[in-house]
Amino acid sequence: MAEYWSTLDVDLHLSVDPASGRRVGLEHALREAIRDGRLAAGTRLPSTRTLAVELGLARGTVSAAYDQLVAEGQLVAVRGSGTRVAQAAAGAGAGAVERGSPRAAPATTPAHPTAPALSTTPLGSGGESVSRPGGAPARPFALSLRPGTPDLSHFPRAAWLRAGRRALNAAPNDVFGYGDPRGRVELRRALAEYLGRARGVLADPERIVIVSGAVQGLALLGQVLGGVVAMEDPYIPLFHGVVRSNGAQVLPLPVDDDGARVDLLSGRRYRDVGAAIVTPSHQYPIGSTLHPARRQALVEWARDGRRLIVEDDYDGEFRYDRQPVGAVQGMAPERTVYLGTASKTLGPGIRLAWMVLPEHLIGPVTEAKLHADHQSEALGQVTLAEFITSHDYDRHIRAARLRYRRRRDLLAERLHTRAGRPAAGFALGGIAAGLHALVRLEPAGMSEEEVLRRAAEFDLELEGLGGLWHTPNTFASSAPRPQGIVVGFGSPTEAAYPRALDALVRTLSWR
Amino acid sequence: MAEYWSTLDVDLHLSVDPASGRRVGLEHALREAIRDGRLAAGTRLPSTRTLAVELGLARGTVSAAYDQLVAEGQLVAVRGSGTRVAQAAAGAGAGAVERGSPRAAPATTPAHPTAPALSTTPLGSGGESVSRPGGAPARPFALSLRPGTPDLSHFPRAAWLRAGRRALNAAPNDVFGYGDPRGRVELRRALAEYLGRARGVLADPERIVIVSGAVQGLALLGQVLGGVVAMEDPYIPLFHGVVRSNGAQVLPLPVDDDGARVDLLSGRRYRDVGAAIVTPSHQYPIGSTLHPARRQALVEWARDGRRLIVEDDYDGEFRYDRQPVGAVQGMAPERTVYLGTASKTLGPGIRLAWMVLPEHLIGPVTEAKLHADHQSEALGQVTLAEFITSHDYDRHIRAARLRYRRRRDLLAERLHTRAGRPAAGFALGGIAAGLHALVRLEPAGMSEEEVLRRAAEFDLELEGLGGLWHTPNTFASSAPRPQGIVVGFGSPTEAAYPRALDALVRTLSWR
Repeated sequence: MAEYWSTLDVDLHLSVDPASGRRVGLEHALREAIRDGRLAAGTRLPSTRTLAVELGLARGTVSAAYDQLVAEGQLVAVRGSGTRVAQAAAGAGAGAVERGSPRAAPATTPAHPTAPALSTTPLGSGGESVSRPGGAPARPFALSLRPGTPDLSHFPRAAWLRAGRRALNAAPNDVFGYGDPRGRVELRRALAEYLGRARGVLADPERIVIVSGAVQGLALLGQVLGGVVAMEDPYIPLFHGVVRSNGAQVLPLPVDDDGARVDLLSGRRYRDVGAAIVTPSHQYPIGSTLHPARRQALVEWARDGRRLIVEDDYDGEFRYDRQPVGAVQGMAPERTVYLGTASKTLGPGIRLAWMVLPEHLIGPVTEAKLHADHQSEALGQVTLAEFITSHDYDRHIRAARLRYRRRRDLLAERLHTRAGRPAAGFALGGIAAGLHALVRLEPAGMSEEEVLRRAAEFDLELEGLGGLWHTPNTFASSAPRPQGIVVGFGSPTEAAYPRALDALVRTLSWR
Repeated sequence: MAEYWSTLDVDLHLSVDPASGRRVGLEHALREAIRDGRLAAGTRLPSTRTLAVELGLARGTVSAAYDQLVAEGQLVAVRGSGTRVAQAAAGAGAGAVERGSPRAAPATTPAHPTAPALSTTPLGSGGESVSRPGGAPARPFALSLRPGTPDLSHFPRAAWLRAGRRALNAAPNDVFGYGDPRGRVELRRALAEYLGRARGVLADPERIVIVSGAVQGLALLGQVLGGVVAMEDPYIPLFHGVVRSNGAQVLPLPVDDDGARVDLLSGRRYRDVGAAIVTPSHQYPIGSTLHPARRQALVEWARDGRRLIVEDDYDGEFRYDRQPVGAVQGMAPERTVYLGTASKTLGPGIRLAWMVLPEHLIGPVTEAKLHADHQSEALGQVTLAEFITSHDYDRHIRAARLRYRRRRDLLAERLHTRAGRPAAGFALGGIAAGLHALVRLEPAGMSEEEVLRRAAEFDLELEGLGGLWHTPNTFASSAPRPQGIVVGFGSPTEAAYPRALDALVRTLSWR
C-alpha cells in the first residue's frame, strides 16, 4: 500500500507495508521518512483526520501511530499548531538527506506552462531580468493556485515504470545509441495515430519531430523562421524570450473572449509577420476558445500569404463541456506547425513534446534539432510510445479529465454561490477547458495588486495577469487592460485543493 | 536468463526461461522472436557455436533447438550460408513488427562522439550540407568499425531498470514538474562526488549544469561565449557547426602526438580567441594525450588572459595502461568548463552530459539552458543519480574497461603480428585510452581513399581522418596532412568484433 499525502509544506511518498499491520506499518513508514530526511525537522504533519482519509485508515489508527512517535520523541504535538517532526529526530541518516529530500531540493515555483523556475519576474521580455539559480522564491506559500502544472501526485508512477520495462525489454540496442534527430520512430508512429484520433491532427510519422518540451519547440522555430512572429498578448513571458533569443522578432497580437484578434493580422502593423503563434483551443491565460470564424480567417491568412500558423495545443486534451475542439492543423496541415506536449497530461519533468510540421520545414527543423542537442532522450520516448499504444495514456487522461472537471466545478460553485459575502466585480471565465480559469476583476472591485496582497495574508500564492503582458507599453495598452487572476486548479494535491479554494474565496470576499 | 546475441545484421534480446529447460526454453524464445518480428524473414542466425558461447549453453543444445525449428519450417538451413529465418515464418504478429523491429527502425550510422546520424558527409562545416532525415546511408555495411558509440549490447538494461524503479519510488513529486534548469540536485550531488573521485574535477553541485549531451553543452557555450573560439583540428565536424550556429566564430588549432598545439595560442593569429575547446585526455580523433608541459601552458594562457578552457572529457574513464589522466579542470577550476558525458560509458541515447562551470558562468549558462529547453528530462537524471550512488556506475565502467582493453589488445595484436602480409606504411596510435585508435597511413602505403574503398569490398565500414578536418583549406594545410583511419573498437558487439577485425586486417594487407 503506497500512498501519497501532503502536509502544508511537502508532498511525501509513504509506503505502508500492510503485512506488519496498519498501525505498526504506518509508524514504521513515518520513522523511516523522518530518519532519511524526507520528513524534515519542524515539518507539520497533516491532521489525523486528513491523513486517515488519504491513506484509507481509521482515524484512531493514525492517532495511535502519532501518539507512539510522540512518545518516542520523534514527533512533537503542540496545541493549536498540530503535530510536527521534532528538531532532534530528523536527518539521522545523513546520506539519505542528500538524496531527494524535498527540503534539500531547490525551491522552485512553477508559474505557467513551461514557466521560469528561477524567478517570479517575467524572464527575457526585455533582457534586463536576472535569473536566480538556486535562489528560493521571495517567500514560500503554504497554498498555491498558480497555473502551469498538473497534479504531480497523480503521475502514474507504477504504470509508467511498467511501460518502461516493457519498452526497454522490447527495444533494439540502437535505442541506446545515436538516432534520428526527429526522435524514435516508435513514438512518432504512436503519436501519429493518437493525434489523428484524439485531436484531429493530420500527422505522418515522417513529419513529427520529438522535442524536449514546448520551450525547445519554440526555440527551434525561432531559429528556423526568423523574421517577425506574431504572438498572443497576454501569453507566457518565457516564450517571448525564447523566440526572441533564438533570432525572431515578436509582435504582440491582442486576444479577447473569442481568442486571438486574427482580424488585426491583415493590418499594416502586421504586414511583415511570417508566422502567428496561437493557442486556439484554450487561450493562455485568458481561457477563451478561438471562434470558428476566426479559425477560418486564420487559415486563410496563412494560405493567402504563404504564412505559418504555430498552434500551441498545450492542454487540448482537457475539455469538459463538449467534444474537444479539433486542432486548427487539421484544416491546413501545410501551413501549420502543431505543437503538443505531455507536460499537462503527465508532467513537464519528462520533457516530451512534439511538433507536426509542414513538409517544407522537416529538413530545417531536423537540422536545428541536430545542432541543439542531436536528439531527445530515447528511453522516455519508447516508454511513452508503449504507454500510448497500450492505451494507458488514454486511461490516464480520462481519469485526469474527470478529476480536473470536478475541481473546475468546485471552483465555479465556490466562487458563484458560496463566497459568503462575495466582492462585487469579479467574474469567472475560461472554464470550458484546461487546468486554469480566469477570475476577471472588474473596475468596481479589487485590483490585481490588492488580490495578490490579500491572498498572501491567507498564505495563498496566486498569479495575476499583470506579469503576462508582452511589455508595459504595447500598442494595445491605450485602452485599460483587463485585470485578472489566473487560477490554476491543476497543481494542488487533492488534499490541498479544498484548502486553497477556501483561501481564494476568503481573498475575494474581503472588503 | 536474458542474453543478447548478434547476427551479421541484428542484435537481439533473447529471453530464455530456464524453468522450461534449456533446449525447450531456447526454442520457445526463438519462436517468439520470429513470431513478433524481432527476427525478420531471411535473417541469418549466428552459428551454433557462437550462440552456444554467448548464451552459455552446450553447442548440442543449440543445434537441437535449431533442428527443431527447421523441422517446424520456421528456420531454413542452407549449406554454406548458415541457418536463416524462413520467409513465411516471420512477422506473423504484424503489430510487433511496427514496434521496435531493428529492421523497421531508421537506419542510422553513428560516426563520432555525438555524430550526425543523418548523413555521412560533414555537417555544418560550411553550411552547404544537407540533412537527409529518414534517408538510409548510401549503403549498409555488415561490419563497422566507425568510432563514436560504445557497445550498446552491453547497456546494463536490468540494472538501469532497477535503479530507475528505486529512484522513482524515492523521488518527491516535484521530479515530474518544472525544476531547476541546472538539473536535479540528486544527480548534481552524485556527480560532484564521482567526478572529484574518478576524474580529479573540483566540482560543487551548485556549479554543475546537466545538459542533454555534449552537443547541447557546446551549443549553450557558443551562445554564452560568442566571440572567437579555438577548436582542435581535426575534431568533430558536427561540433564546429554547433558552435558556429550558436554565435561563435571557430578558429582551428592544430594537434600533434602531444595533443593540441597550445604553443600556437600565444601567436598573432589567435590573439582574439576567448576560449579553447580541447580534448586533453585523449584527443579526438588522433588519440594523443596532452603533454604535461602543454597542460601547464594551457592553464597559464587561460589565467594570464582571463580566457577559458573548455575541456571535452568524452572518454576519460577509459585508460588502459596507467592511472587515468586527471582533468585539466582540477588545475584551474575558475578558468575551465569541464564537459563530461554518459554517452561513452552508458550510451548516447540517454542524452545525459554535464558541465562543471566557473562561478561567473553559472548564471549565463543557466539562463541559456532555460531558453533552450527549460531543463533536461528528470527521470533519467534521478536514475543516473541512483546508478552512481549505488556504485552500479563504477562496476559497469570497470567491466566495460576490461572488455574494451581486451578489444584494444586484440586490435594491436592483429595489426602488428597477424596481418599476414601487412602493407608497408601504417602504424597504430592513440591506443592508451578510449574507444578508438588511429591507423596512421604513411605516404608509402595506401591512401585513405584506397583503404575505405578496399574495406567496402570486405563489407566493412570505416571512417577516414579526411572528413574530420575543419575545412579543406585551414592555414595549417600547406603541410601535407596526415592520412589515417579512425578505428572505433567500442561499437561492434562481442560477436561481430573478431569478424570486423578480420576484415580490417585483410583490408590493410591488400596490395
